[in-house]
Amino acid sequence: MSFDPLAPGSTVGILGGGQLGRMLALAAARLGMKVHVYEPAPEPPAGQVANKVTRAAWDDADALADFAAGVDVVTYEFENVDLAAIDVLAPLVPVRPGRRALEVAQDRIAEKDFLNAIGLATAPYAAIDGTDTLETALEAIGTPSILKTRRLGYDGKGQVRLDAGSSADAAWLSVGKAPSVLEGFVDFEREISVIAARGGDGSVAAFDPGENEHRDGILHKTTVPARVPAGRAQDAVLLAGKILTELDYVGVIGVELFVTRSGLVVNEIAPRVHNSGHWTEAACLIDQFEQHIRAICGWPLGDGARHSDAEMVNLLGSDAEAAPGLTGARVHLYGKAEARPGRKMGHVTRIRPRGAGG
Amino acid sequence: MSFDPLAPGSTVGILGGGQLGRMLALAAARLGMKVHVYEPAPEPPAGQVANKVTRAAWDDADALADFAAGVDVVTYEFENVDLAAIDVLAPLVPVRPGRRALEVAQDRIAEKDFLNAIGLATAPYAAIDGTDTLETALEAIGTPSILKTRRLGYDGKGQVRLDAGSSADAAWLSVGKAPSVLEGFVDFEREISVIAARGGDGSVAAFDPGENEHRDGILHKTTVPARVPAGRAQDAVLLAGKILTELDYVGVIGVELFVTRSGLVVNEIAPRVHNSGHWTEAACLIDQFEQHIRAICGWPLGDGARHSDAEMVNLLGSDAEAAPGLTGARVHLYGKAEARPGRKMGHVTRIRPRGAGG
Repeated sequence: MSFDPLAPGSTVGILGGGQLGRMLALAAARLGMKVHVYEPAPEPPAGQVANKVTRAAWDDADALADFAAGVDVVTYEFENVDLAAIDVLAPLVPVRPGRRALEVAQDRIAEKDFLNAIGLATAPYAAIDGTDTLETALEAIGTPSILKTRRLGYDGKGQVRLDAGSSADAAWLSVGKAPSVLEGFVDFEREISVIAARGGDGSVAAFDPGENEHRDGILHKTTVPARVPAGRAQDAVLLAGKILTELDYVGVIGVELFVTRSGLVVNEIAPRVHNSGHWTEAACLIDQFEQHIRAICGWPLGDGARHSDAEMVNLLGSDAEAAPGLTGARVHLYGKAEARPGRKMGHVTRIRPRGAGG
Repeated sequence: MSFDPLAPGSTVGILGGGQLGRMLALAAARLGMKVHVYEPAPEPPAGQVANKVTRAAWDDADALADFAAGVDVVTYEFENVDLAAIDVLAPLVPVRPGRRALEVAQDRIAEKDFLNAIGLATAPYAAIDGTDTLETALEAIGTPSILKTRRLGYDGKGQVRLDAGSSADAAWLSVGKAPSVLEGFVDFEREISVIAARGGDGSVAAFDPGENEHRDGILHKTTVPARVPAGRAQDAVLLAGKILTELDYVGVIGVELFVTRSGLVVNEIAPRVHNSGHWTEAACLIDQFEQHIRAICGWPLGDGARHSDAEMVNLLGSDAEAAPGLTGARVHLYGKAEARPGRKMGHVTRIRPRGAGG
């Protein structure tokens, strides 16, 4: 697989106009590309920095076809893109990373099946379609465990934890009786993530793994380097590379990993740039956003070497009000009008010389 | 002097839609600001990444008033903004850095008068308005010397060098008989520039001086750090700070300096972000563009410390065709459609660890 590079001045189409689309648009602009955002919601953050915005529904085949006609490549900023929209676009324009990555990432069962099939460890899991299967699965997997909807969950939404004595009925109700997966508890030392990229020529590159801290199911902080031995960090990078190659992927992927005493366990994959990679804009010559644009445009991957250690913290809701005063840090705000509690409004990255401790 | 900070979501108005306006717009977006570009020419590069573009002439008072009504602060990306446009805008909306800096920077005589008045060295110079004054000035200043138009010169345009035996008549013709200045030759070791900023609270910060290499009158390369002793670099920074304070300036300024055996001589000042500061986007946590936006929005200045050594090279005309292949560097392209010879199409920055040599 290989394809001709797009010339500067080409147009990158982005499905989804949130903050990830916005940061992709900024990176595309730095490479001289124009950007066309497709987003059903009004006033998308990415639209403020894009050359053009189409506001239309995901099932509007005419709007999708018009969009395809005006762009040179299509990518997406979120994994829950309607596959039917991809099926309209794909015959008309290259879609990268492509359909297969979405199929796998949209369904927690398909994702774990895929990962296990290529030899990677996941939490023990079972498909759940009612209280009967849940009770059977609880006997096999035990507690604590987590019931998650198969589709459309993010930032801890659509999840419930089960402990000894928890009611299967209540848990099933709390996920809205939606097709789900029961995941066994993984006894992990820490969670890390690898942001990796695969180019149109099949070459693979990865940023150094970061260590993640969540609060209330939402990423709070990523610290780089992660506190893992060099060999384990290399394992993580190789594992991400295997996923990319097996999916015949083009672009950037985020791979969340549990570090356990017996090795790395894949938590989940995101077929897109990833919140835990935002630190790269401050601590690498080429960041995850540019790496993704380079890949989908058929440019060789850039140098993602890390020049500094880094700590990225998300700004949720009213946190962002403090942003102007954060002078010793790199602030990035997403242009969202309404600062609802828990909403990701921006992030802030501090850097320090490599190995200086903190 | 001090003013309230603009909240994220405010709108920054930029006069001029070239690459500097584009890079200012990208920095403003990172801080959550909206951007409105005012530019008479069609399809300005900055327009591709701005929330809104007004295409109107500099003398269109109605369009200027409408623009002022829609923005929270106005800045400019080039020093030759028509002062009459500033006079329309200034009663309606804050204009930063403001009128005084433009007056000084638009006229080479006014600029040198100002610099000398605050105790800074310049080349010897004389105002020229015909062959008579030119011949008199040549006797006083000698050759080699350079005749430059007082106004509207840039990148070596509107300049002619005079050597022993050069014809005053021919030189006067070659600057179009426009009011000019004769500048004596400065015997310099190297040219450096300081990119400095002054906040709304009067605080001053500067990036480390860079060393510039020109080709055919156009900046070719900036290398950081400049090869000057630490004391000389500090002198350069203090000198830039003096200019900022004396102008009661808010924003980023570029100060080009000749390093001579007897000290620093100011070549020229640019009341805006500067080509010789483009390296800051790759080698500093906060770059010159963000620093400018922070200043004009009343935010405290950010940390411009340099984490890496850097070398920035301009991509002129067809140079930019090589951009996709420059993988060990940070490429920045300006989205210009037509790659005329000598036209600034982009730049590329390489970094290496501080003090590693190169």
